[in-house]
Amino acid sequence: MSEILLCSQSYKNNLDIISTHIGSKEKLGVVLKDNAYGHGIEEIAKLASTYGIKSVFVKNELEAKKIAHLFEHITILYGSLSSNAKNFHLTIHTDTQLDNLPQNSLIELKINIGMNRNGINPENIESVLQKIMQKKIHLFGVFAHNGYGDDIGEDFENCQKIFEEIKEKIKYFAQKMGFQTPRFHSLNSSGTFRSQNIQDDLVRVGLASYGYLTTDFKIPIAKKLKPVASLYADKICTHFLKKGTKIGYSGVTQLQEDSFVSTYDIGYGDGLFRFNGNQEAFFTADGYLLLPRSSMDCFSALSTKDRICVFNDATILAKIFNTIPYEILTNLSSFIKRTIV
Amino acid sequence: MSEILLCSQSYKNNLDIISTHIGSKEKLGVVLKDNAYGHGIEEIAKLASTYGIKSVFVKNELEAKKIAHLFEHITILYGSLSSNAKNFHLTIHTDTQLDNLPQNSLIELKINIGMNRNGINPENIESVLQKIMQKKIHLFGVFAHNGYGDDIGEDFENCQKIFEEIKEKIKYFAQKMGFQTPRFHSLNSSGTFRSQNIQDDLVRVGLASYGYLTTDFKIPIAKKLKPVASLYADKICTHFLKKGTKIGYSGVTQLQEDSFVSTYDIGYGDGLFRFNGNQEAFFTADGYLLLPRSSMDCFSALSTKDRICVFNDATILAKIFNTIPYEILTNLSSFIKRTIV
Repeated sequence: MSEILLCSQSYKNNLDIISTHIGSKEKLGVVLKDNAYGHGIEEIAKLASTYGIKSVFVKNELEAKKIAHLFEHITILYGSLSSNAKNFHLTIHTDTQLDNLPQNSLIELKINIGMNRNGINPENIESVLQKIMQKKIHLFGVFAHNGYGDDIGEDFENCQKIFEEIKEKIKYFAQKMGFQTPRFHSLNSSGTFRSQNIQDDLVRVGLASYGYLTTDFKIPIAKKLKPVASLYADKICTHFLKKGTKIGYSGVTQLQEDSFVSTYDIGYGDGLFRFNGNQEAFFTADGYLLLPRSSMDCFSALSTKDRICVFNDATILAKIFNTIPYEILTNLSSFIKRTIV
Repeated sequence: MSEILLCSQSYKNNLDIISTHIGSKEKLGVVLKDNAYGHGIEEIAKLASTYGIKSVFVKNELEAKKIAHLFEHITILYGSLSSNAKNFHLTIHTDTQLDNLPQNSLIELKINIGMNRNGINPENIESVLQKIMQKKIHLFGVFAHNGYGDDIGEDFENCQKIFEEIKEKIKYFAQKMGFQTPRFHSLNSSGTFRSQNIQDDLVRVGLASYGYLTTDFKIPIAKKLKPVASLYADKICTHFLKKGTKIGYSGVTQLQEDSFVSTYDIGYGDGLFRFNGNQEAFFTADGYLLLPRSSMDCFSALSTKDRICVFNDATILAKIFNTIPYEILTNLSSFIKRTIV
């Protein structure tokens, strides 16, 4: 059966590179949301915990519960909380979310610094802080997401300046209103790598920890990142087929010479994007040509090997399917077996 | 939190249409593989069982175990078996698979009738049957998959003729070798709908049961099929934004007028294909314009509604993303809540 192998050495290598860049292991928070970007949240959490990571970020409470025993601080980015676990910090995007929170809830406040997507607008911070105080809620962190980390231009720095102003504002209010200064974080993978002097208490690294960076410009140390996941498929059967034979749905592939053709047990139903014959040629990581159209549960390839490595670098598939490595990875079905190697 | 609503009336409507067309409820087998084409295998299995379905088809043993208590016959299309449950029938694609099977195993034999993907080649049937007899394995079924169901032209009929010849051959060997004639099936959704006189013991319907058909030609009764799944997203927050404001990663959207913009809690990490700004405009089922780029966990839309219906017909998204409804559906993350309505 198909399997995703997770290379523990590569994951460690990536965390080492990031820790060295930011100058500290303690300031490194990792993003485990969306099933650890498709890698498998329980497996990656285990590796992150072994490495010594204390702060992680997950999509919702369902994910948090799976790894609750492993980290000091688990920030839940979306949804609400039914549990009052002491290491769960709910993200607040809007003041109305505070209405139903019990006293002593632990929250992190998301601030909109220019992506205009989620979070509190800077001009509303004072009133939100007052509400937090009134409701005796504990403000554990304040953070933002810079949507321009990958891009050349001034937008990235402009957004960071807004966050710096917010930090000063909140420190001022902390003193004035009498609450503990929260932790601050704003940098994702590209933001972390492009910043030489990190003033935040924490960085929040997802993509780079899995071995990728998608900046429009070159960052030399990023070359040392190693993809963590490799997708393997096992052979279902092999046929020897004559030149001219049609293969797959609607007979889209027609063989140009006599060939051994095998099917392998991964298809678009497993989250491997569907090859319909209109994309450029795709060769598996070990060099076998995939023959469109792929099916829901399998694909055909010019190979007789029992097990093949479909990919060990998601950027190749991302290019073929005109998307980003994130989508190739998060798409991998949670039902595929994950194995740490 | 996001949710997939499964309309039990639509599912029943679709099974009624198919049963009426084939003239029998008993001959209707349904395909539940790949998490019931992304709908949720446990939920759809419940509906299928209530309807009276006896035979179903799943991807692997993991799926079979989830619904083992509900059906008389569960055919496992790929992989191997660790359990010897009496209602599990393992699909055999190659004679070497028989080597490790224990006596009295229940199998279905997959025959390659021209798709040249999976299954035994017709010329090898006799030797495979002999091996089955020697090993005292029970041949419960023989089936094929016609890869030309959607297409105009003679390929579909030519493949069906091959299957008819195979049926005759196997009936002859059953008498000669002294085993019970197995059940025969070869038609998927499009094959079933385009056939007026079904000679098989069973049809194997997936896509149509979920409300879709993708034939290149019109089949009048197919118009009565109703999509079963609707995807809903809940609001995270709303911002009032001025004309010219940039939204999302790299500020790809720039507002053409002052607008209320909300984010909703579904992204490509949930299996909703990623809008990057290069596709044609997408309006949610209730008419709200989605603003690229979508994120891993959310998208922005010109709406203030608390909950919106992202889609209730996967063909619209399939067109935008140049794929088939199957891929849109199977892509939906298993972590999204499913609710039968």
